[in-house]
Amino acid sequence: MPAAVALPREVAQVQALVAACRDARMPVVARGRGTNTTGASVPSGGGLVVSFERMDRLLRLAPEDRLAVVEPGLLNGRLQEAAAEHGFFWPPDPTSAPYCTIGGNIATNAGGPAAVKYGATRDNVLGLALVAGNGELIRCGGNTTKASTGYDFTRFVIGSEGTLGLVVEATLKLSPKPRARQALRALYDSVESAAAAVARLMAQPVVPSMLEFMDGDCVRLAREVGGADIPAAGALLMIEADGDPDTLPHAVAALRRAADGPGAIGIDDAPDEAARLKLWAARKALSPALRTIAPGKINEDVVVPVSRIPALVEAVRALSRRHGLTIVCFGHAGNGNLHTNILYDPADADESRRAEAAMHGVFDAVLSLDGTLSGEHGIGLAKRDFMGRAVDAPTLAMMRAVKAQFDPQGIMNPGKLLPPT
Amino acid sequence: MPAAVALPREVAQVQALVAACRDARMPVVARGRGTNTTGASVPSGGGLVVSFERMDRLLRLAPEDRLAVVEPGLLNGRLQEAAAEHGFFWPPDPTSAPYCTIGGNIATNAGGPAAVKYGATRDNVLGLALVAGNGELIRCGGNTTKASTGYDFTRFVIGSEGTLGLVVEATLKLSPKPRARQALRALYDSVESAAAAVARLMAQPVVPSMLEFMDGDCVRLAREVGGADIPAAGALLMIEADGDPDTLPHAVAALRRAADGPGAIGIDDAPDEAARLKLWAARKALSPALRTIAPGKINEDVVVPVSRIPALVEAVRALSRRHGLTIVCFGHAGNGNLHTNILYDPADADESRRAEAAMHGVFDAVLSLDGTLSGEHGIGLAKRDFMGRAVDAPTLAMMRAVKAQFDPQGIMNPGKLLPPT
Ligand SMILES: Cc1cc2nc3c(=O)[nH]c(=O)nc-3n(C[C@H](O)[C@H](O)[C@H](O)COP(=O)(O)OP(=O)(O)OC[C@H]3O[C@@H](n4cnc5c(N)ncnc54)[C@H](O)[C@@H]3O)c2cc1C
Ligand SMILES: Cc1cc2nc3c(=O)[nH]c(=O)nc-3n(C[C@H](O)[C@H](O)[C@H](O)COP(=O)(O)OP(=O)(O)OC[C@H]3O[C@@H](n4cnc5c(N)ncnc54)[C@H](O)[C@@H]3O)c2cc1C
Repeated sequence: MPAAVALPREVAQVQALVAACRDARMPVVARGRGTNTTGASVPSGGGLVVSFERMDRLLRLAPEDRLAVVEPGLLNGRLQEAAAEHGFFWPPDPTSAPYCTIGGNIATNAGGPAAVKYGATRDNVLGLALVAGNGELIRCGGNTTKASTGYDFTRFVIGSEGTLGLVVEATLKLSPKPRARQALRALYDSVESAAAAVARLMAQPVVPSMLEFMDGDCVRLAREVGGADIPAAGALLMIEADGDPDTLPHAVAALRRAADGPGAIGIDDAPDEAARLKLWAARKALSPALRTIAPGKINEDVVVPVSRIPALVEAVRALSRRHGLTIVCFGHAGNGNLHTNILYDPADADESRRAEAAMHGVFDAVLSLDGTLSGEHGIGLAKRDFMGRAVDAPTLAMMRAVKAQFDPQGIMNPGKLLPPT
Repeated sequence: MPAAVALPREVAQVQALVAACRDARMPVVARGRGTNTTGASVPSGGGLVVSFERMDRLLRLAPEDRLAVVEPGLLNGRLQEAAAEHGFFWPPDPTSAPYCTIGGNIATNAGGPAAVKYGATRDNVLGLALVAGNGELIRCGGNTTKASTGYDFTRFVIGSEGTLGLVVEATLKLSPKPRARQALRALYDSVESAAAAVARLMAQPVVPSMLEFMDGDCVRLAREVGGADIPAAGALLMIEADGDPDTLPHAVAALRRAADGPGAIGIDDAPDEAARLKLWAARKALSPALRTIAPGKINEDVVVPVSRIPALVEAVRALSRRHGLTIVCFGHAGNGNLHTNILYDPADADESRRAEAAMHGVFDAVLSLDGTLSGEHGIGLAKRDFMGRAVDAPTLAMMRAVKAQFDPQGIMNPGKLLPPT
């Protein structure tokens, strides 16, 4: 429970709040809409919560310069609606888009399925204004899509989870909205065959606009528990292309050729929107199906190089056997970003202990496979104790030293992202 | 003239060199191949030059993960050759590619025509290792195309011009090499018409793989002095699409539709490679033509939002009249990155003074148009005195504070990028 909640309406108020907290050495925790999955917006050390609910204006939309200037509390979904009227979109597309903020997207470096083609938040922000923990207003980047003018604070602040300062304004890079898209669903006999197909898909010039993966356990759950109308398979890929109505059939044909290969046991395409939604039914059936297996889940968004996906899924299977828990993998295969879901009953102390041990095992596997702890959710409270294993000591020391420049009193979201000393 | 030049072969030697210079408080200036245009690699304060000529190995090429791990002294062109064997390329494509290094590309955030579609260096590096000025080896980023694991030092180091430390290894993101490309040359009655076409081209979903601009003076020089076989025009765009042979004609058709509009006075396309090279002749004729006008030039790579291109060209014309010097604009229009060339005789003191004044005027215009000092060349010595106008005081103070964490003794490329205090 925080000591207080502030709902500022303008930058000057945010600056006054941070200056007061700096002088009082009171923690400041930014809050968008609290949808993060790592405890990052929980005021675990008390202090002031600064909610950006009232700083939610779209300040400027400039289609001719492909950019939008926004306040941090603007909902991702609201921005998408406004941009769509001009034929544009902002690529970061978390499933939570209708109820998460641009400020939260920036602070977590949020992604989504579109990142495989368009990048995550870090690749789609041109500039921002930050009230740093020292009370100063820092302006980084600008209105251009290219710059070599000094140190790049913009991308440094992205993913910093409110630990350097409060983002009070952002200039976002918009992309032209594709006029058409089409989906393919490809089934494989094994995870290895599917991963080889992912590598083939990513090695040819037509970049898919989505490339989602489900392992065999996911396919089984979607079929048997979720009632999805798909054949049994060792793994499944959902592939989408986007573009112009003219170019799309050629793009889809190129993706189909790349998806096909050893172990492919069926590739269906969806010529129209109804068919596309039907293909996605398996993916949609999965979440409710997971809930019927166990009341709780630990969902980690680990990342490995694409070629290591089979090794990660194999390691997860071994952890599942060792700890006697169902663990399923699905996610953004084109980036090697897999959501590893450990299913367990939080009311059962022994299962909870085993789930915790399995989570450690997943992180061990990921790091030994040259991967990283988080692709899009961030570190927050949940993974901070693992940072010392993902990042070596001199680099971690430099992270602390640089944070101290932005936030000399250590008031900005204390206890998050960095491990306790 | 430096006190000494070191040519290390491995990381441990670089670490020993930096530690020795740190203890002796001796400046350390990194050198790739010295092709930068801002004086960034000149050892203006003496000290040790560390050349990366002998650290030029391609350590690993992993097509299945779309990445390459390289030593900093590897030539950009050599990397492209090796990647091409596997059907890939690395997008940063400076004209100097055959004789500039990846380390130099990283330190300047180098770009080129392909940046309009594929981004500049900052968008195409996944991770790197840096021997910081404090002597520590810092490892940032990794082998994955997505990460939210703590502060992003990778992009922070990109563009830092050797002022934080020495880059000793980099993991580069490769892209699939397009199988075909095709060019269009579009002539316009005015800069305004051409700029409107640039905005239309960037607002539709087919992203051009190049979008280069020449103002009317450039067209005239290419015709009258360079002998290029093109009609007179107020401005010219060179537009290219890339992709698969199947999709390319549709992409070119979409670009042609967008290029056409008010003020378009002729659009030619180049169905084959010979025709493509012929269309580029105007651009090629330009550089030699400039040299016949005046023996010296100040070439600034300023950037403005695309919609401000006409205002910039207009401001440059006014400066040209006021100072009695030929100033021409051409460059990477899709990013608003214009090379502004002030032509003058360095042997003539009065002309030199006027050229200098005109350069100040160009920077003033760019900043008042919401633009920035450099798109791809960096700041170095040449523009450091203007940093205080491009970046506000608290942000500049934060740049200095963060630099001091990497380089507490201030030995790394002193006098570059930041203005003297
Ligand atoms: C159902 C569901 C689906 C999801 N799907 C995805 C997905 O597909 N991809 C994905 O990446 N994420 C996903 N998420 C996670 C979450 O939605 C994102 O991390 C989102 O970016 C958080 O936005 P928020 O406004 O809720 O921020 P919050 O949760 O309120 O805050 C997140 C972090 O940002 C900081 N912060 C917020 N605003 C600011 C500011 N103005 N300045 C500085 N720091 C600030 C907070 O302090 C905190 O550290 C999902 C979450 C849910 C619940
Ligand atoms: C004819 C010509 C055409 C050009 N065309 C373009 C173009 O189209 N686009 C473009 O962006 N640039 C262009 N340039 C500029 C230049 O080629 C680039 O800036 C290039 O990236 C410099 O590489 P280099 O190896 O020569 O680096 P250098 O010039 O040696 O060094 C550049 C900077 O990088 C630092 N540095 C070098 N290596 C390291 C390292 N390992 N660690 C830390 N710092 C290091 C140096 O200290 C210096 O600050 C052009 C230059 C010429 C001469």
